[in-house]
Amino acid sequence: MKILIDTLGADKGVKEIVEASILALDRIDYEPILVGPEDEIKSHLNEADISKVKIIDAKDQIFNEDKPTLAIRRKKESSMVKAMKFLKEGSADGMISPGSTGALLTGATLIVGRIDNVERAAITLIIPGLKSNTIMLDVGANMDISPELGLKFARMAKSYAKVLFNHENPSIGLLNIGLEEGKGNEFSLKTYELLKESDLNFAGNVEPYDLMTTEADIILTDGFAGNIALKTAEGVGKNLLGLFKEAIMSNYKTKLGGLLLKDSLKKALDQLDLDSTGAAPLLGSKNPVFKAHGSTNKDQFAAGIVQLAKFIEAGVIEDIEKDMNKEGENND
Amino acid sequence: MKILIDTLGADKGVKEIVEASILALDRIDYEPILVGPEDEIKSHLNEADISKVKIIDAKDQIFNEDKPTLAIRRKKESSMVKAMKFLKEGSADGMISPGSTGALLTGATLIVGRIDNVERAAITLIIPGLKSNTIMLDVGANMDISPELGLKFARMAKSYAKVLFNHENPSIGLLNIGLEEGKGNEFSLKTYELLKESDLNFAGNVEPYDLMTTEADIILTDGFAGNIALKTAEGVGKNLLGLFKEAIMSNYKTKLGGLLLKDSLKKALDQLDLDSTGAAPLLGSKNPVFKAHGSTNKDQFAAGIVQLAKFIEAGVIEDIEKDMNKEGENND
Repeated sequence: MKILIDTLGADKGVKEIVEASILALDRIDYEPILVGPEDEIKSHLNEADISKVKIIDAKDQIFNEDKPTLAIRRKKESSMVKAMKFLKEGSADGMISPGSTGALLTGATLIVGRIDNVERAAITLIIPGLKSNTIMLDVGANMDISPELGLKFARMAKSYAKVLFNHENPSIGLLNIGLEEGKGNEFSLKTYELLKESDLNFAGNVEPYDLMTTEADIILTDGFAGNIALKTAEGVGKNLLGLFKEAIMSNYKTKLGGLLLKDSLKKALDQLDLDSTGAAPLLGSKNPVFKAHGSTNKDQFAAGIVQLAKFIEAGVIEDIEKDMNKEGENND
Repeated sequence: MKILIDTLGADKGVKEIVEASILALDRIDYEPILVGPEDEIKSHLNEADISKVKIIDAKDQIFNEDKPTLAIRRKKESSMVKAMKFLKEGSADGMISPGSTGALLTGATLIVGRIDNVERAAITLIIPGLKSNTIMLDVGANMDISPELGLKFARMAKSYAKVLFNHENPSIGLLNIGLEEGKGNEFSLKTYELLKESDLNFAGNVEPYDLMTTEADIILTDGFAGNIALKTAEGVGKNLLGLFKEAIMSNYKTKLGGLLLKDSLKKALDQLDLDSTGAAPLLGSKNPVFKAHGSTNKDQFAAGIVQLAKFIEAGVIEDIEKDMNKEGENND
């Protein structure tokens, strides 16, 4: 299995991504194709490891500040565009990138192309839960979507959840402002109806209180509300942890208190299993495209490569295509 | 100044609310009209305090589980409905309730009535910020609103913010998924344009990361996204604090650590000034209606009464009416 690895775009730099690709070789059998500045990539590899990878030289980088459409069209020498062209040609089985989400999404549409009958691709996120992890989508790609497209997002996520969680019939919750049927905005009201009538394992509405504690495998939302929830959670989490750190650092007594708590606190926070998945797919892309967080570290990125390999091996996209063809036929 | 106090609906019971109304007498000069079960209310008052309050006997209660419209129409003997009728008649200057938000909102429309030219009332929330507090609206009353109504919500919040923050020209941010103009869904894109063209002090988009750190006085959002943000923040906050508590309680060493941190932690969390406002208005109601949280305590509810008194004294509703009449004329 050949996996394209975009080495540019991680906060921690090329080295972290190169080392992650080698680390993943201990866990799965695959051929890493590292895309990025060849000299720098080589400088992070020892003799033995160089023979295990292929390198596609790419000097240019797409940044978060670049306008996605312009960048994808014009930065032909960027690692992301080069990787996507290889993917499109069939020269590899999937790709993973820590780079700009917007550019990756645009490239997945303009270069790689979409699955038939899926009008838009969705950004997925794995929420680290206290009971179990949850796939949330769309978390920011599509602002105003139809309930029909929402249902397709749910179907695609189901194919992915089967592989990620090893559940035969993954459950799907709808992000909403109340548990009861009849709550919500126009999108959520209509999508609720479609989910209820569908053959999917619909678990009803999920309130945002329960994002970290829900037992649903999938949470469906439109990209606006999904992005609002995601960024609210990140902001509150960051601010609260900041207040705790401040409390611990305020004097000698509190520093000692912090020291006594350290291990136990780490254990508690480790329940939020941030490292286990490492990356998540853009669902709707015709070939597997995984997005890792810009702040990814070696372990997380290696876990992302492992997830991508599982996704490829299980034939998630073929599964989605079959499902969407059926959908298309039903609509004819 | 006469203030109607709905004594039913608080998690801590009638006693907490009755005591709060007496506590507020130390801080402002007002006439409390306590609405609820007379015998119970009296049992929580001493001789001296009984002479300072009026009581309107009301045996029935509207619960959170009641359907708001049905409850407001049928539970004529409930404390909430009785208080609203008194308010409508002009027998008091404002009311405050810890009861069902949905019922309060419905009653504000069906019994009290709306301000001319304001099609819907909005639920406001005071976000405890790390830099300063912020008024957010709408946090759940109206799901799919027009950008024009959004602009009216912003105008009403401005009148309130002048009193709450003592700012001459309060700043208004728009809750959105990115800082740049051109981000967002249809509602936020159009509302951005209206705010930019208006005479309001528009501060641009506010990302949900920054809910607790923004310096904007007001954050405008539609009720769906606002409610999603609010409930996500509450859920993440609760879960993280739960993890910390768990870490502290796990053994003797960590309990000692927790003890050493206690004061400092309390001080850090006190920056999130949850008690200072205590309640927030339903904006759009023709007479002042304040909603306190169901989990309110004595201090918070007393603070809510003080805020309501300020709101009445400053003539916020008259200010809004003037503004909306001007709006109406401009549209003619």
